[in-house]
Amino acid sequence: MLKDIQNQKDWRNIDIDRVGIADIVYPVVVKDRSKGKQHTIATISMGVNLPHNFKGTHMSRFVELIHKHRENISIDSIGEILHEMRDSLNAEESQIRLSFKYFAERKAPVSGQISLMDYGCDFFACLSGSGKDLVITVNVPVLSLCPCSKEISDYGAHNQRSIVKISVRASKLVWIEELIEYAEKSASSPIYALLKREDEKFVTERSYENPTFVEDIVRNITELLNSDNRIEWFEVSSTNMESIHNHNAWAVITKDKRQGMK
Amino acid sequence: MLKDIQNQKDWRNIDIDRVGIADIVYPVVVKDRSKGKQHTIATISMGVNLPHNFKGTHMSRFVELIHKHRENISIDSIGEILHEMRDSLNAEESQIRLSFKYFAERKAPVSGQISLMDYGCDFFACLSGSGKDLVITVNVPVLSLCPCSKEISDYGAHNQRSIVKISVRASKLVWIEELIEYAEKSASSPIYALLKREDEKFVTERSYENPTFVEDIVRNITELLNSDNRIEWFEVSSTNMESIHNHNAWAVITKDKRQGMK
Amino acid sequence: MLKDIQNQKDWRNIDIDRVGIADIVYPVVVKDRSKGKQHTIATISMGVNLPHNFKGTHMSRFVELIHKHRENISIDSIGEILHEMRDSLNAEESQIRLSFKYFAERKAPVSGQISLMDYGCDFFACLSGSGKDLVITVNVPVLSLCPCSKEISDYGAHNQRSIVKISVRASKLVWIEELIEYAEKSASSPIYALLKREDEKFVTERSYENPTFVEDIVRNITELLNSDNRIEWFEVSSTNMESIHNHNAWAVITKDKRQGMK
Amino acid sequence: MLKDIQNQKDWRNIDIDRVGIADIVYPVVVKDRSKGKQHTIATISMGVNLPHNFKGTHMSRFVELIHKHRENISIDSIGEILHEMRDSLNAEESQIRLSFKYFAERKAPVSGQISLMDYGCDFFACLSGSGKDLVITVNVPVLSLCPCSKEISDYGAHNQRSIVKISVRASKLVWIEELIEYAEKSASSPIYALLKREDEKFVTERSYENPTFVEDIVRNITELLNSDNRIEWFEVSSTNMESIHNHNAWAVITKDKRQGMK
Repeated sequence: MLKDIQNQKDWRNIDIDRVGIADIVYPVVVKDRSKGKQHTIATISMGVNLPHNFKGTHMSRFVELIHKHRENISIDSIGEILHEMRDSLNAEESQIRLSFKYFAERKAPVSGQISLMDYGCDFFACLSGSGKDLVITVNVPVLSLCPCSKEISDYGAHNQRSIVKISVRASKLVWIEELIEYAEKSASSPIYALLKREDEKFVTERSYENPTFVEDIVRNITELLNSDNRIEWFEVSSTNMESIHNHNAWAVITKDKRQGMK
Repeated sequence: MLKDIQNQKDWRNIDIDRVGIADIVYPVVVKDRSKGKQHTIATISMGVNLPHNFKGTHMSRFVELIHKHRENISIDSIGEILHEMRDSLNAEESQIRLSFKYFAERKAPVSGQISLMDYGCDFFACLSGSGKDLVITVNVPVLSLCPCSKEISDYGAHNQRSIVKISVRASKLVWIEELIEYAEKSASSPIYALLKREDEKFVTERSYENPTFVEDIVRNITELLNSDNRIEWFEVSSTNMESIHNHNAWAVITKDKRQGMK
Repeated sequence: MLKDIQNQKDWRNIDIDRVGIADIVYPVVVKDRSKGKQHTIATISMGVNLPHNFKGTHMSRFVELIHKHRENISIDSIGEILHEMRDSLNAEESQIRLSFKYFAERKAPVSGQISLMDYGCDFFACLSGSGKDLVITVNVPVLSLCPCSKEISDYGAHNQRSIVKISVRASKLVWIEELIEYAEKSASSPIYALLKREDEKFVTERSYENPTFVEDIVRNITELLNSDNRIEWFEVSSTNMESIHNHNAWAVITKDKRQGMK
Repeated sequence: MLKDIQNQKDWRNIDIDRVGIADIVYPVVVKDRSKGKQHTIATISMGVNLPHNFKGTHMSRFVELIHKHRENISIDSIGEILHEMRDSLNAEESQIRLSFKYFAERKAPVSGQISLMDYGCDFFACLSGSGKDLVITVNVPVLSLCPCSKEISDYGAHNQRSIVKISVRASKLVWIEELIEYAEKSASSPIYALLKREDEKFVTERSYENPTFVEDIVRNITELLNSDNRIEWFEVSSTNMESIHNHNAWAVITKDKRQGMK
């Protein structure tokens, strides 16, 4: 029988916080609010704690767990994966991060034409002595139009694609689609994969009527998340790919509602 | 003495077009039109042909050449590197690609404030039986404002950062700065690292007065390159990071002036 | 009615080679040799030529075509997309590039455990006066073990993950899986997402018994592609992420069999 | 005079944690232990807090500060930048992150040949009511050889490039070079840009004699950082680009020595 080196003793007396696999790419099926399920591809990292007296962990078991659960990734199944990881690796703590594209149908505002928009999402979950922790993140591309540029210029206003990032811890289910809507409502305009000429006119005018600084976007979303009682903690940022610069404008607000106002 | 495996015979009768090193990162000094020289960092790939009867090439010699020439990278020294590569590797053909950031001072249009803009550049050079070939590429971020959006909307117009890419083969020295100017002249406006409020007004209005489709940008640059007699061949593209979409608009024109109009 | 700016005349007398959309991300379904079909996500660029007398193309039509064909992407449907693109944009030439992850089951060599490996693939197709052109590319991660290091060292040999890239033009259907097998056969060993201890022993020993330079890998694949009569043209490269360096070793062979031996 | 929109009142009663610029690329000069100074290129993000009653911050001032200090970036000048940021933006808190390549000469172990290795570095500094905080990070590519693969195989052992990342908070100056040495000592072998055949033999044999799991690497570094009294806090991770997989092995240890053993 082959020797199990990983199971040998280690004498350095040093606990390892997390050890596991990183950046494995796997096809997965996630829940979709409107269609039940959605096929996507996740980049996954998983790890457990390793007590000081063990030399190594058993990396192949992480892959077995991903392979087993790949056709049913949800908040619920992530809880199961965390427990199974802890059991199969003899650990006290377990952790998983899944980053994936989530697609949602968007209807062009005038023509009504349907297309799919891609949103970068991330589930980060841990299981430890203090229970389970889950952070859901969604990245939403939106349009921002600069209020200063509009005000000081005789005509026009610089505008650009911005990436809004919302991370939440919640006491009840929050759909990815709900966070997308919070982001889209808070910018100068949503953006779309498919716009006909009448839609382009609409989006251009709506964004000009509704200028937003990067500061406005994060404050608008903060107001929405503050009044959503399911949300216990959040971090919201916006990165505006400024059309007049080769760098970005950026703002972030973090808030733990469980602790009262920060 | 250690055996030279690379120098052994190979029996498969297959020539290799290029073999060498890829993606080594090295600090280099390049020529700067206004300051004489500029410190930057290059990602470098180098290779030679390998005749069918040799088993392998000697990879360390590429690194020695880069180390030797790192403080003087220019069109001239690249010619020397190509010759030395051929000699030290006993090859008939040699090739090098250096990709680096080039910085140039830009003056804000009203306040006159100075800042530095970064431009992604690329030197791609080959030496073979048919002589030396050199392609210089520069990526220039600019502002594009959509003529259609302006025309059909009661106010405003979507605009965005665009990346113009110009590659040229030339019969005489062409400065990176000259290609940057061709790109900036051909878009709705140049962009800057540093703009004060009066500059922002100027850039906003100038771009609104000067709308350009992605098609216009590549055509405008083509006109400039057509009338520059040093340019023998070019490829010009623009990628517009559309503020109303999560994807880009893109156009490309390639032309070999040595062959007459394409 | 809104004015069609794109349809207006242009007076610069400059044809545009390609104009369209770049880097749209869309969920697609591709053919799978063993399961019939596979859900994946593609990054897509599409374009047409634009004659000199037209000011612009109609970008939304590209997205409509992708949306329409998204659930059936194959060599056949790509041909249809190229024709529909040409028709709906009134162009003579059309082009599409789809880059996507393709997953295939791999069986660990001793334990027989099943897991999925991800392979970066690319379909690049053009339609023009000279007919349809299609290049299929697959990137295959493999293990390479250095013959020189093995020969000169008293024990051990440096080895690393390498990315083999095979692009082909073919007269008949070639499956992605077949190109993957060509790459895996030509390196020191295939690699896997999931290996148990007995598999790790097998892979370690097999790669030590079968050392390959980056030159050997591309030559071995060239032999296989040379003797496959369906292949009309190919380019094969390998990029070895050398464990003893922070840069890569790299080799490439291109061959057009239609023209006889290069 | 142009209206100062940013200076206007905001009524939503929401403080912003950080607002500023992200991902500006600038040439900078940093301190070099052996040569006094080193030219490099930094990707920089800067931000301040924004009290609830102000509508916006003044983005151009961040760029002015970077431009002013670009030729002298050090622990000391970063302190000045933080103070000047706070003053010029009328803020209570300021923050900067600079990510840059740092080059150090490495001598091949047998031939003694000199080449430069690139190390990704990061300075992250904040100024707030609780004082100044600075985290220095360095990424060090090293070689790891798997102890399990060596033990269970009759010959050979899989090995690969690994990226060790060390972040520290320190009470006294710690040189980037010192952290690089901690990482290199803790792996199976350092790696180099330039190795001659005799060096390759040495590195191959040394790594075979000195196998390290990803767990061993982070534990070895932890021992070194534990016994360095200048270090107050650290996080150390290693990401091994496994040659037998298309994913990575990964481990991390975080420790705050100011709080006693975690």
